[in-house]
Amino acid sequence: MRIDILTLFPDMFSPLHQSIVGRAQEKGLIDLHTHDFRAHATNKQRHVDDMPYGGGQGMLLMPQPIFDAMDSFSHSQARVILLDPAGKKFDQKMAETFSKETQLVFICGHYEGYDERIKTLVTDEVSLGDFVLTGGEVAATVMIDAVARLIPGVLGKQESYEEDSFSSGLLEYPQYTRPEMFRGMKVPDVLMSGHHENIRKWRLKESLKKTLERRPDLLETYDASTEALKMLADLRHSSKASTDVVE
Amino acid sequence: MRIDILTLFPDMFSPLHQSIVGRAQEKGLIDLHTHDFRAHATNKQRHVDDMPYGGGQGMLLMPQPIFDAMDSFSHSQARVILLDPAGKKFDQKMAETFSKETQLVFICGHYEGYDERIKTLVTDEVSLGDFVLTGGEVAATVMIDAVARLIPGVLGKQESYEEDSFSSGLLEYPQYTRPEMFRGMKVPDVLMSGHHENIRKWRLKESLKKTLERRPDLLETYDASTEALKMLADLRHSSKASTDVVE
Repeated sequence: MRIDILTLFPDMFSPLHQSIVGRAQEKGLIDLHTHDFRAHATNKQRHVDDMPYGGGQGMLLMPQPIFDAMDSFSHSQARVILLDPAGKKFDQKMAETFSKETQLVFICGHYEGYDERIKTLVTDEVSLGDFVLTGGEVAATVMIDAVARLIPGVLGKQESYEEDSFSSGLLEYPQYTRPEMFRGMKVPDVLMSGHHENIRKWRLKESLKKTLERRPDLLETYDASTEALKMLADLRHSSKASTDVVE
Repeated sequence: MRIDILTLFPDMFSPLHQSIVGRAQEKGLIDLHTHDFRAHATNKQRHVDDMPYGGGQGMLLMPQPIFDAMDSFSHSQARVILLDPAGKKFDQKMAETFSKETQLVFICGHYEGYDERIKTLVTDEVSLGDFVLTGGEVAATVMIDAVARLIPGVLGKQESYEEDSFSSGLLEYPQYTRPEMFRGMKVPDVLMSGHHENIRKWRLKESLKKTLERRPDLLETYDASTEALKMLADLRHSSKASTDVVE
């Protein structure tokens, strides 16, 4: 996959040269290019932003440096992503869609707004979440990380197991590793029992319990077995009982 | 504000040394420390992870290197944040809460799970969104960026206007800057008219239209004026009318 990034801060993408995404570039699975669009500003001071027509505060990215930067490389088949708080929220499904493309282009603003005409270049306006950042660079880095790890060959066998834990549709059960006793805290007996069926049941129940407490929305789309449905009914009953006592 | 980060990849935080957050460090408003917890591993191979008790695939961060890294610096009043897909979702309100603290500690895993006992050190389990990353580093970078810009003195006057645009409760209206005509695309006449009242009305209507189309959930908490309510009714009516035509 080829990834092009239009940015005023190319050095902010250095995390993508490390660890898993860095190795993916070494293996040739990802071909990453940053384009400093200030280099395309035609005015003498190399300004890339100006004041909004119609009045108002803040600055806006001008269309010309962005359009000229886009003209400087080939992207006819690319998905062009604009980082914008008003965009569609990024999620795992979008990461999967993006991971199947041959080229992604990210346009990153930096604490300014965009001239509306820039959006004619764009296929997807995307937001990382309901929060404000100093610029799109760190948001684009997160999206590229999430997309890159889905490209076949990027993750090693060991690393790819984390994905499975998410795809059960439930939050992860509590996990423990060595030592058995640490600073007075012991691993639950069931996990040391070697009794696979009991371990499986304990984990399912703990996953259901955590999901019920923290993300009940996930249960709406969860494909529950008869066993899981019974556990959920018990959990709901006992949490109701404890609420009644408090009242 | 003091920020401590426990990580296996300290170099991945280099974006925080640039631009606005970088300047905040130079001004002494943020005091950032990274702690490579591999340095605290007591085994000969400096392993920080091990297999889960009770079976299963993937690796887990062991409690010992994390606890010993935490013991190596003072954090008695700190908020301790664990990056975890099962955590509470990060948003602007959380960023505001965090920005009022005197110390934040971020614990970043890297494609492994956590031994459950690590969570006894933690005040907040936080998730950036419903997507999977290769590690917590890029997510922590985003959170630190969102928090840092809210600390008084970090943003310059110019930079802080972006925040206001979000606080109206609506998505931003389309904005334009120079030139008036670019590649055949012209700035809307109303913005060139100098008629402030018409410009205000046009912007309010465009904001309402975009919010209605993309984020109707925001309208549930939006404190609408009589004028805005009338515009919304008109917009809903005309969008219904156009749907009827299509049907």
